[in-house]
Amino acid sequence: MTTSPPDAPTLDLAADGVTLTAALCDVPSVSGDEGPLADAVEAALRGLGHLEVLRDGDAVVARTRLGRPERVVLAGHLDTVPIADNLPTRLVDGVLHGRGTVDMKGGVAVQLRIAATVPEPTRDVTFVFYDHEEVDAASNGLGRLARAHPDWIAADFAVLLEPTSAVVEGGCNGTLRVEVTTRGVAAHSARAWRGHNAIHDAGRVLARLEAYAARQVDVDGLVYREGLNAVTIHGGIANNVIPDRCVVAVNYRFAPDRSLAQAEAHVREVLDGFEVAVVDGSAGARPGLDHPAAAAFVAAVGGEPKPKYGWTDVARFSALGVPAVNYGPGDALLAHADDERCPAADIARCEQALHAWLTP
Amino acid sequence: MTTSPPDAPTLDLAADGVTLTAALCDVPSVSGDEGPLADAVEAALRGLGHLEVLRDGDAVVARTRLGRPERVVLAGHLDTVPIADNLPTRLVDGVLHGRGTVDMKGGVAVQLRIAATVPEPTRDVTFVFYDHEEVDAASNGLGRLARAHPDWIAADFAVLLEPTSAVVEGGCNGTLRVEVTTRGVAAHSARAWRGHNAIHDAGRVLARLEAYAARQVDVDGLVYREGLNAVTIHGGIANNVIPDRCVVAVNYRFAPDRSLAQAEAHVREVLDGFEVAVVDGSAGARPGLDHPAAAAFVAAVGGEPKPKYGWTDVARFSALGVPAVNYGPGDALLAHADDERCPAADIARCEQALHAWLTP
Repeated sequence: MTTSPPDAPTLDLAADGVTLTAALCDVPSVSGDEGPLADAVEAALRGLGHLEVLRDGDAVVARTRLGRPERVVLAGHLDTVPIADNLPTRLVDGVLHGRGTVDMKGGVAVQLRIAATVPEPTRDVTFVFYDHEEVDAASNGLGRLARAHPDWIAADFAVLLEPTSAVVEGGCNGTLRVEVTTRGVAAHSARAWRGHNAIHDAGRVLARLEAYAARQVDVDGLVYREGLNAVTIHGGIANNVIPDRCVVAVNYRFAPDRSLAQAEAHVREVLDGFEVAVVDGSAGARPGLDHPAAAAFVAAVGGEPKPKYGWTDVARFSALGVPAVNYGPGDALLAHADDERCPAADIARCEQALHAWLTP
Repeated sequence: MTTSPPDAPTLDLAADGVTLTAALCDVPSVSGDEGPLADAVEAALRGLGHLEVLRDGDAVVARTRLGRPERVVLAGHLDTVPIADNLPTRLVDGVLHGRGTVDMKGGVAVQLRIAATVPEPTRDVTFVFYDHEEVDAASNGLGRLARAHPDWIAADFAVLLEPTSAVVEGGCNGTLRVEVTTRGVAAHSARAWRGHNAIHDAGRVLARLEAYAARQVDVDGLVYREGLNAVTIHGGIANNVIPDRCVVAVNYRFAPDRSLAQAEAHVREVLDGFEVAVVDGSAGARPGLDHPAAAAFVAAVGGEPKPKYGWTDVARFSALGVPAVNYGPGDALLAHADDERCPAADIARCEQALHAWLTP
């Protein structure tokens, strides 16, 4: 039972993108505590008048209903990873410092600016602001919308405003995690020949991984780079016991020309002869740049599209049949960093590009 | 401040060895709680009259002072590993079941029987009963005696009554533990090529260990078998991070022809090129079967001496210049087992053999 405190945040959508980004960051909204910010976003959007505004939990959806032949989504998440003594934001020499500036309040600010300044876009636009992106996949607000209200996010094309340094990054790689277990026979290490060393056996798993040549694959014109890596290894129970078990966790990042099932089959082939168990996985997303709305977007934005290596929520749109790209302000390598910071110019450039795409 | 309870245990040294073993086991004496049993042993030995009895903490030393040209030690520890619902002891079909029957109250019973029944041995005898053998080496009661009262345990030859199934097991292998660390560069696993995988590098450490051919070495007529094994491995911090560190703990069990320093040099040679840090180690012990007292012992006991693979406190005697062998009732493989059990015949055989060795 919460009531809005007297100083409930309000957002001024008439402010410039950098000022709006700072205001969004300065409302702390670590995953699970997005409520006050979602309230502020909802209130600001309802104040615009030209949008239908919907709400599910701490996700807010707003859309034009102009009857355009195409509908596009602009999507971003409201939550951040925990604050690291890096709020409130500071603007220094044209760079906005602080938690959320990159991941991804800069992108959210661009969404809100487009919502406020393009009342009659050339394509119908659905703005999606969602919760719980930075925590376990089962809690993800976009996933919840896709299950509960697929009609709210239906579209011909989607732009996810995750940080890409204002360059179009198409689709994303998929990710698969497996555990490879070797099993031996325990014995006292003073009589090692009575046992069988499971850690020594794991050496052959690691040799297989080290020798692996990762693919670089052209998908719809973008070259995706793969990786197959041991990420953790644990074996042995005591310093005087021949280990009877060793577990290697392996992460396969795979290009979007492979389905999740194909990725699993490939890993099983590479690790043939070993005990392999799938832990979890998510399919990637093809860039879909051959779609007319995507092509128009790339033309409006300019520059050379790149592939997205990390898994992002574009894959959730892809799974719904909606081609999607990543495009937003800030360097993804600074996301989650203690010195997270975003160039003001990135925010302005993204806003201008989307404005150009959605106006005559 | 403890006082003896009214039912302080008393030991009847006139009872047969199996009955005495059961009585010793039925006084719980897990490491750190040897006091009541040490009190009972001390009282029983003082009651014999022909022995000088000394005490240090929960270690009890008793010795004849007959002026014989040779002095030998019979040594055993009073403590056990924790009880596993396996006391009181049960004698079933000639086998005594329960914690301590093998490790090593059967041996202690044999010591006490010899003390009681051989008042004028042909060699002067020092009986050593000590505490804290089953815990960290720094607490070991024999080590404490060696530091504080080396004269109490000085001798020409020592028999440690650790379980050997009533066969002479000479000397012991040494043990060395090292940690091998591989270091890489962390990166997000979606961009693995920006990092360097320390776990993959550890695969080459494991390959080196798997290819290693362990020696079998003749030392003083006994063949010692070595082993070089990874006992634990740990690497990686998260499922989406290229690991920047992996640590393999390696245990080298080495024959007593090598000193601890030589063993370390050998391991560094085998693992040349890797970062190796010594964690701890203990030299082994040569069997010393060429010593006249040892030869007479082997002749009296009969059978073919074997090498001892596991590290035992014979190495503490060896370090003092006292050749030592292991010889006691029970199968060492059942030590610490929940179903620990010792054949009554082993106890009788050991007592008879030592009796024959020490009487005209």
